[in-house]
Amino acid sequence: MKVTLLASTPNATKVVATAAWICTHLELPTEADLHPDKCGPMVKRVVGYGHTSILEHASFTFAIEGVSRACSHQLVRYRIASFSQQSQRFVKFGNGSGCGYVMPESCKQDVEVIEEFERALMAAEAAYDFMTKKGIPAEDARFVLPSATTTKLVMTMNARELLHFFQQRLCIKAQWEIRELAMLIRAEVVSKEPVLFATAGPGCGNCKEKRSCQGE
Amino acid sequence: MKVTLLASTPNATKVVATAAWICTHLELPTEADLHPDKCGPMVKRVVGYGHTSILEHASFTFAIEGVSRACSHQLVRYRIASFSQQSQRFVKFGNGSGCGYVMPESCKQDVEVIEEFERALMAAEAAYDFMTKKGIPAEDARFVLPSATTTKLVMTMNARELLHFFQQRLCIKAQWEIRELAMLIRAEVVSKEPVLFATAGPGCGNCKEKRSCQGE
Amino acid sequence: MKVTLLASTPNATKVVATAAWICTHLELPTEADLHPDKCGPMVKRVVGYGHTSILEHASFTFAIEGVSRACSHQLVRYRIASFSQQSQRFVKFGNGSGCGYVMPESCKQDVEVIEEFERALMAAEAAYDFMTKKGIPAEDARFVLPSATTTKLVMTMNARELLHFFQQRLCIKAQWEIRELAMLIRAEVVSKEPVLFATAGPGCGNCKEKRSCQGE
Amino acid sequence: MKVTLLASTPNATKVVATAAWICTHLELPTEADLHPDKCGPMVKRVVGYGHTSILEHASFTFAIEGVSRACSHQLVRYRIASFSQQSQRFVKFGNGSGCGYVMPESCKQDVEVIEEFERALMAAEAAYDFMTKKGIPAEDARFVLPSATTTKLVMTMNARELLHFFQQRLCIKAQWEIRELAMLIRAEVVSKEPVLFATAGPGCGNCKEKRSCQGE
Repeated sequence: MKVTLLASTPNATKVVATAAWICTHLELPTEADLHPDKCGPMVKRVVGYGHTSILEHASFTFAIEGVSRACSHQLVRYRIASFSQQSQRFVKFGNGSGCGYVMPESCKQDVEVIEEFERALMAAEAAYDFMTKKGIPAEDARFVLPSATTTKLVMTMNARELLHFFQQRLCIKAQWEIRELAMLIRAEVVSKEPVLFATAGPGCGNCKEKRSCQGE
Repeated sequence: MKVTLLASTPNATKVVATAAWICTHLELPTEADLHPDKCGPMVKRVVGYGHTSILEHASFTFAIEGVSRACSHQLVRYRIASFSQQSQRFVKFGNGSGCGYVMPESCKQDVEVIEEFERALMAAEAAYDFMTKKGIPAEDARFVLPSATTTKLVMTMNARELLHFFQQRLCIKAQWEIRELAMLIRAEVVSKEPVLFATAGPGCGNCKEKRSCQGE
Repeated sequence: MKVTLLASTPNATKVVATAAWICTHLELPTEADLHPDKCGPMVKRVVGYGHTSILEHASFTFAIEGVSRACSHQLVRYRIASFSQQSQRFVKFGNGSGCGYVMPESCKQDVEVIEEFERALMAAEAAYDFMTKKGIPAEDARFVLPSATTTKLVMTMNARELLHFFQQRLCIKAQWEIRELAMLIRAEVVSKEPVLFATAGPGCGNCKEKRSCQGE
Repeated sequence: MKVTLLASTPNATKVVATAAWICTHLELPTEADLHPDKCGPMVKRVVGYGHTSILEHASFTFAIEGVSRACSHQLVRYRIASFSQQSQRFVKFGNGSGCGYVMPESCKQDVEVIEEFERALMAAEAAYDFMTKKGIPAEDARFVLPSATTTKLVMTMNARELLHFFQQRLCIKAQWEIRELAMLIRAEVVSKEPVLFATAGPGCGNCKEKRSCQGE
């Protein structure tokens, strides 16, 4: 799994601070009003009051590689986001060309499970290759490809939705693969914009889950 | 594949006509203003001008069964919609319990292809059963399940987004399975609300596709 | 101010329960599974875990009358909602035809304030009438109309967004007019669907506001 | 009226081209694949097919000053966008502090109309000042402020939604003030990202409006 930050709003903290400022002032901020020593605390204060809409003005675009289709199926359910995903209709896989897959850690503990897992994946890849050689369109041959198959995406999310994504997916009860993805994404954005993501984390403290970790 | 209309906005044409009316009148409409002889033409006229936002006030909820995960992956990309989907994390399949699958028509023309397709699917199901019996969680065992595996969803869309969905997915260039789904959904809503869906169809006449059907 | 529930999803609790069920079951629910004695507790349990997305399948449409443009300007900022609003471009007001207005309670305590308030509004209405008689288009004449001017809307929101709206706008720190509106809307939906709106209220318990009421 | 581009996605055409590429390729693009000579044509070709979703990865943030509340009320109806607007609840105007207003061109042609317009606005400002001095909260005093009152906003929109905004608001039938705003915004983004906005313009050619300009 690999996450690359392709682009983000330049001077994002300053842009967000400008948005915060304009809500409660008669005039736009001056450069002095937006001095780094002031921007950070201003943004933290307003976000701290729960007024997170200002964070929508900061946008982040990632290339995501090596996640399973099981993971991407969860990811694309976020509706306040933009996705461009590798199409299994138009990209032909197989033939040793790198139809990679993800094997969960839990399956790697037992050699019999590993063998059974790999047997299923080899059967899928063999069937895919056989069918595409027979002239079956890729969009139909892919029906045999498993959820373990890797995919690539370009994803754009704003900082507010990213915080929401982190709250849900950094929870230790989230599925392990999307949690791992959330950790990589957080590392990128915290390093890039530490002020905006100062509170990035799971939604602990307000957890209603049936099987809450109770601070396990 | 099966589509059931679970619920829809009662008197939807009248509700939409009320929304159309209020935009350009001083007072709310009377019952006489909303007589069926007037509502239908009023809605058709306003929608005909391209003012389709009034159609958002009519909402439709469907149960969808027997579509592949390949199909549902496309479907859930519509962001002006609500989805509740059968979870492969929490539902355990297999053991003869009905882990159904979809085989594309193109694969049914050649007995060798059928055999290869079924071999892959049996290998997947066998691996799934083996792993779940070994104690692998369903959420990890599902990594071997193919895109052909069927799923169930409850979906809610408003009439405006449904028309957009039809424009894209009733096109003969759309993937065959989601096109079949779009036809079943259209049959349901046209029968229920013929006025609102009078123009439901592919986006022909405004097609920019590279491989346009050119009215094939 | 007047709120009328024009339409809502029939059997909404049952529809929402169907959506909750399908996430974790192999088959769709039977009628017995959806018995009212079971639906209500099922929905409350799932919503209680914070899984509120199932509430999106229940939709509510209101006619709203007699609110100020100041109020509607806040209301239409909700983006997971549909609005059809009386247009000041296409509807000509004035001439005794009912260009109503809202006067805040705080302005009614002092006769001088009342007089000043009404002087401004009469000047606005006189200018509007003068200009429209002179042939100025309504869309330009309305520039003199005050925020106090009343408006009408048709609004559709799903139950999840309504709960979010209530959390923000039933707070005693919300602006009084939209809070009054939220109370009227809540009364409608709680009466119609008591199960879905069992928790409808301000976001107390999780308040981060600077000037929190602290349970005043 | 003044529009300032506060920020935009760096190398936006390259980012969008990366998104276009990943949909139909096995691997992410190399630097050579993303050479400016290739990016531009690739993006124009894909957008030309109507596949505009890739444009969502380019985001633009503006400061908007000197537009009327009549204009901003239309603007904030765009739901695929983020707005931070000067609050009339928390900002106190008046007292010569610059409670500016917009007068439509149509009102400036006749000295009597100008006088009537200004009389209404002076009455509003006088009432506002009187009330705030009397201790009426700004959020209530603003009820007398007219739609002509200017406001400030920070707005973020992605390139796809901007093209949609241009289609609707650059139409000569759009309200003059928001059309003027759309022209200023277009000038900013066309200058910054000419490839992405090569087609920015009104939706002519597909016009369904009742009172179409017919190419006036």
